Amino acid sequence: MCETCGCNVTPSNSHVGESVEVLKGLLDANDHQAAHNREHFQRHGVFAVNLMSSPGAGKTALLEATIDALDGETRVAVIEGDLETENDAERIRAKGVTAHQISTGSACHLDAHMVHGALHQLELDGVDIVFIENVGNLVCPASFDLGQHVNVALLSTPEGHDKPAKYPVMFRAADVVLVSKADLLPVLDDFDPHYAERCLRGLASEAPLLEVSAKTGDGLTRWIDWLKEQAAR
Amino acid sequence: MCETCGCNVTPSNSHVGESVEVLKGLLDANDHQAAHNREHFQRHGVFAVNLMSSPGAGKTALLEATIDALDGETRVAVIEGDLETENDAERIRAKGVTAHQISTGSACHLDAHMVHGALHQLELDGVDIVFIENVGNLVCPASFDLGQHVNVALLSTPEGHDKPAKYPVMFRAADVVLVSKADLLPVLDDFDPHYAERCLRGLASEAPLLEVSAKTGDGLTRWIDWLKEQAAR
Repeated sequence: MCETCGCNVTPSNSHVGESVEVLKGLLDANDHQAAHNREHFQRHGVFAVNLMSSPGAGKTALLEATIDALDGETRVAVIEGDLETENDAERIRAKGVTAHQISTGSACHLDAHMVHGALHQLELDGVDIVFIENVGNLVCPASFDLGQHVNVALLSTPEGHDKPAKYPVMFRAADVVLVSKADLLPVLDDFDPHYAERCLRGLASEAPLLEVSAKTGDGLTRWIDWLKEQAAR
Repeated sequence: MCETCGCNVTPSNSHVGESVEVLKGLLDANDHQAAHNREHFQRHGVFAVNLMSSPGAGKTALLEATIDALDGETRVAVIEGDLETENDAERIRAKGVTAHQISTGSACHLDAHMVHGALHQLELDGVDIVFIENVGNLVCPASFDLGQHVNVALLSTPEGHDKPAKYPVMFRAADVVLVSKADLLPVLDDFDPHYAERCLRGLASEAPLLEVSAKTGDGLTRWIDWLKEQAAR
């Protein structure tokens, strides 16, 4: 019997406690695998970057621009995560960089087991940085450690400046926030970078917030400097 | 022992089978509750619309423009879903329309139980259409029936025209696809509406694809006509 409306349906929450237990088990298993992945990266002297954002915030475009900016000095490999299609991996390969595509089917995030599988498809010797482009999703990927060294969150200007307040789990997890598609700022009326930064600081995050445009190249230098500094630690 | 690299870590998948069972149980319970919600709506003569998209694709702006366009003739109530903040509900209330905010905490989608709770906070008598604005996420919300009559998916132009191919679960579930922020088309170089439509048809979807701009009002008439036609069925 429904308590609130008195009608003849019991909202069944009987699975909720059970699912919390199972999800905790899955996250524990994921963390275990992620620690293993991290050892893999470390053994090969590889710095691993987990790139997260909403769909279409420009993760692949940022990678293309980053590969160009690094200009072969820093050697890169890429793991691409998408529900479907090999489109992103193909864009990266067109830059002469090795890319492995993970197709998650209906899964909304990468997990450490998927990345582990991909690591065995990638030649890590001679690679300095592995970028892991997560599934476009501003919620779930933040909860799954992949074995990365840093989390990069993109906040695309057309999404609006309030997103750090509305998606706190993602932006709390970010080591740097890149305000992407900054070239669109002049035509947008709902993105004030100062407001976005205030939302981020409201989460007690000290992550730098950098404006970048993969299209014009503006802001890329600061991003590349940050990246190299982190990788050198 | 790891099969692929021979190192001393067993990727634990022991929880996977268990989690599939529990998730199936959760989805079954959700479907049961969704059927109950649908009865609620029907008993009150209410047409229910589930609005889904990536974060920042303009769901709230579309609702504001829709409320203006309906001009009080069709009476509306709104259920807002967000991880955090009451911002969206406040924007709707500023239009003189009742809005109930669901804060999901860390949950990446609304489920039928959350909507059921909200229904008991909303006065449905005298309401013609309830819009349920889901959490901004192009993956997970598509898998949870809320008791709605139609699914509306927004595809925001700056996200790029390939999204139906990359997020097939969402776009297969859509009864109509609204290409939002169409006013940005002239400044974008990676959105061809014909390409987006081909991606959608590639999923064997016959859903109409309509360009709209909440900012300029362009395309709203076709969307309102579609909505009224569906609600009158």
